[in-house]
Amino acid sequence: MIQTKAHANTHTYFDHNATTPVCKEVLAALPEFAEAWGNASSIHWAGRQPKNIIRDARKAVADAVGASSLEIIFTVGGSEANNTVIKGVFEHNQSAQFLPAEQRRRTHYMCSAVEHPAVFKTMMHMKSLGVRVDVIPVNRKGEIDLKFYEEHLTEETALVSVMFANNETGTLFPIKQMAEMAHAKGALFHTDAVQAFGKVPVNLHELGVDFASFSGHKFYSIKGSGFLYSRKGSNFSPLIHGGAQERHRRGGTENTMGIGCLGVVAKRVSMIEDKARTVRALRDHMEKRLVSEIADVTVTAGESPRLPNTSSLVLLGVDGETMLMSMDIKGYAVSTGAACSSGNPEPSPVLLAMGLTRDEAQNSLRVSLGWDTTLEQVDSFVETLKAVVARLRSLKDDEGDSLHV
Amino acid sequence: MIQTKAHANTHTYFDHNATTPVCKEVLAALPEFAEAWGNASSIHWAGRQPKNIIRDARKAVADAVGASSLEIIFTVGGSEANNTVIKGVFEHNQSAQFLPAEQRRRTHYMCSAVEHPAVFKTMMHMKSLGVRVDVIPVNRKGEIDLKFYEEHLTEETALVSVMFANNETGTLFPIKQMAEMAHAKGALFHTDAVQAFGKVPVNLHELGVDFASFSGHKFYSIKGSGFLYSRKGSNFSPLIHGGAQERHRRGGTENTMGIGCLGVVAKRVSMIEDKARTVRALRDHMEKRLVSEIADVTVTAGESPRLPNTSSLVLLGVDGETMLMSMDIKGYAVSTGAACSSGNPEPSPVLLAMGLTRDEAQNSLRVSLGWDTTLEQVDSFVETLKAVVARLRSLKDDEGDSLHV
Repeated sequence: MIQTKAHANTHTYFDHNATTPVCKEVLAALPEFAEAWGNASSIHWAGRQPKNIIRDARKAVADAVGASSLEIIFTVGGSEANNTVIKGVFEHNQSAQFLPAEQRRRTHYMCSAVEHPAVFKTMMHMKSLGVRVDVIPVNRKGEIDLKFYEEHLTEETALVSVMFANNETGTLFPIKQMAEMAHAKGALFHTDAVQAFGKVPVNLHELGVDFASFSGHKFYSIKGSGFLYSRKGSNFSPLIHGGAQERHRRGGTENTMGIGCLGVVAKRVSMIEDKARTVRALRDHMEKRLVSEIADVTVTAGESPRLPNTSSLVLLGVDGETMLMSMDIKGYAVSTGAACSSGNPEPSPVLLAMGLTRDEAQNSLRVSLGWDTTLEQVDSFVETLKAVVARLRSLKDDEGDSLHV
Repeated sequence: MIQTKAHANTHTYFDHNATTPVCKEVLAALPEFAEAWGNASSIHWAGRQPKNIIRDARKAVADAVGASSLEIIFTVGGSEANNTVIKGVFEHNQSAQFLPAEQRRRTHYMCSAVEHPAVFKTMMHMKSLGVRVDVIPVNRKGEIDLKFYEEHLTEETALVSVMFANNETGTLFPIKQMAEMAHAKGALFHTDAVQAFGKVPVNLHELGVDFASFSGHKFYSIKGSGFLYSRKGSNFSPLIHGGAQERHRRGGTENTMGIGCLGVVAKRVSMIEDKARTVRALRDHMEKRLVSEIADVTVTAGESPRLPNTSSLVLLGVDGETMLMSMDIKGYAVSTGAACSSGNPEPSPVLLAMGLTRDEAQNSLRVSLGWDTTLEQVDSFVETLKAVVARLRSLKDDEGDSLHV
């Protein structure tokens, strides 16, 4: 992996859930893909090389997630894929001709309380268009309320969307079981697998979901690349109508470079299990040190099945944003929640939905390690965070004292 | 510009309306943008460089099209921008709270008969969802039916979408006048300017449209880059719900590389007028030779205001696809219609809509020149096409003879 040159030696990146560095294999492939500038839909010479790159990438990506090539639809990222499924199922049910009445009746949607905004806000938008949406609770241990789910799932449910792994806590949800429950009622099941791909093995045919969303830049590829898995026979109305690209499922000239880069990282997927083991050991070592060496630290949903690289910490009495900025000055990149909510002074909606108090959520820090994280980096990080927390707590005590003077 | 290495000397690219080569300025900037791999929404060090690249590109793009930075929303291309406007205006009118009743009543949409599928199919999709859509005729001279437009435009019209320039014939439409007419009825006006940007100067504030769509790869940038102009005060519901990116108008991690490359080409926009003059002279020279040296050749809508680089030719009695493939063998890339419809044996819907006969449409060839086209290339092209047409016509005569034996 590369890091921005100026930062290569002095900076440590522990925010891999926000985005990842571009790996050297992808960087090396960029010039080749840039030279394949033809339109992949052209039937003359300029279209041939792009067409081959895309075919090759589609096969690699399908193999990497346990799917077949025809089930892969290239998008520009996870958000587009998530919107495609939710809006696409709704509009298909509204507009398709010759649809069985049974399917037209399905106007109920469900998602978990801790979805990424690309799912959650889309569901709330659907609600504003008149559909019924139920939100499945998740408790502070990271457990999703399967009883609520079972009780609210009906023959009217069109689609359920529950993420594979949460972006803030790393919690893994029982997707296979939940997809089976949805299917038993005739509903479709979608999983936002953006945070899972590259961190844990994903086998879609085994999972049995109908749709799954993926993003390249969470897995060492370039931004503007992603894909949607749509199980053979799963129908939806395209989010982007237009040309015949992606078998009429997604209009717009194919982004050969983005797609090619996805293929490059997909071919590295066999490394995931090994990498995951190493990263998990580092993460567990970090958490163990933090919990034993800093007072009042807890790991949110730390006992639940989790991604191997993610720690969502509560450091009581220390403001998350202030911690983030203090760590930034020392060269450490961490986050208070999802990057796309950064700059928002409100505490994480995900942590609040899980039942953390406003104070706990405000005192949270997300640390997400990557494939190239070293033990040395982790130990320096722990030492630095210890010092930062000690200083911020002492400042706060001083303020507190002065208030009481 | 580069061309695919193997083809650099022997191949001539005359299909610039399908896509353009990536210019050397963009190629040179790629490594810098790839190194700015941070998430632009991150508030730590990794987010700063991407944020600066995006800010700089937004300013350059806004300047290039006569808009202000806040009116630019980065997308991944023209199709996304087109879908965003049409679906976004519809869903905004359906779902927004506190909307005046007058606006809710607006359920009528209009577009021209020759729109790109990203507009036309989206309009037809809207129709399947229950809105009323009127299609404005365009005649074979390339003239849009302003009388029809005036008669059908009502106080119920929500949105009119008419392209700046047609992708197959190059016809320029009277956008400024049509936008004024729409506004007089309180309707919004969108123009798909994908084919115009980079070929003719575009000044949006002067045009007075509410929305305009642009694509980077039609203008020597990489694929997966584009933008939507949304005039201050024009409201729409996002096509991609999610994070707070693009001021809540388009969710999804910013594609720093695609956006940065757009900025690079936008800074070259002052060259357009000069380039256009050169390209127009070459195109006119080509057409003059073709019409005088080959029998039964006409230029579709050749007398109307047109893009300087585009020729839509009818070569009677010669199948377009066969011509395309014969020219491809000789190293010339041309097209029979839009690239995204390639492989479709049906004749161009655009040409049919303009009133060309099925035979005329089937005998059509689109030639689109670029910034680096030379007189030598044009003359070789004319000679080659002459030979190809002569051979195909003689083969056809032989077939005809044998049929009558």
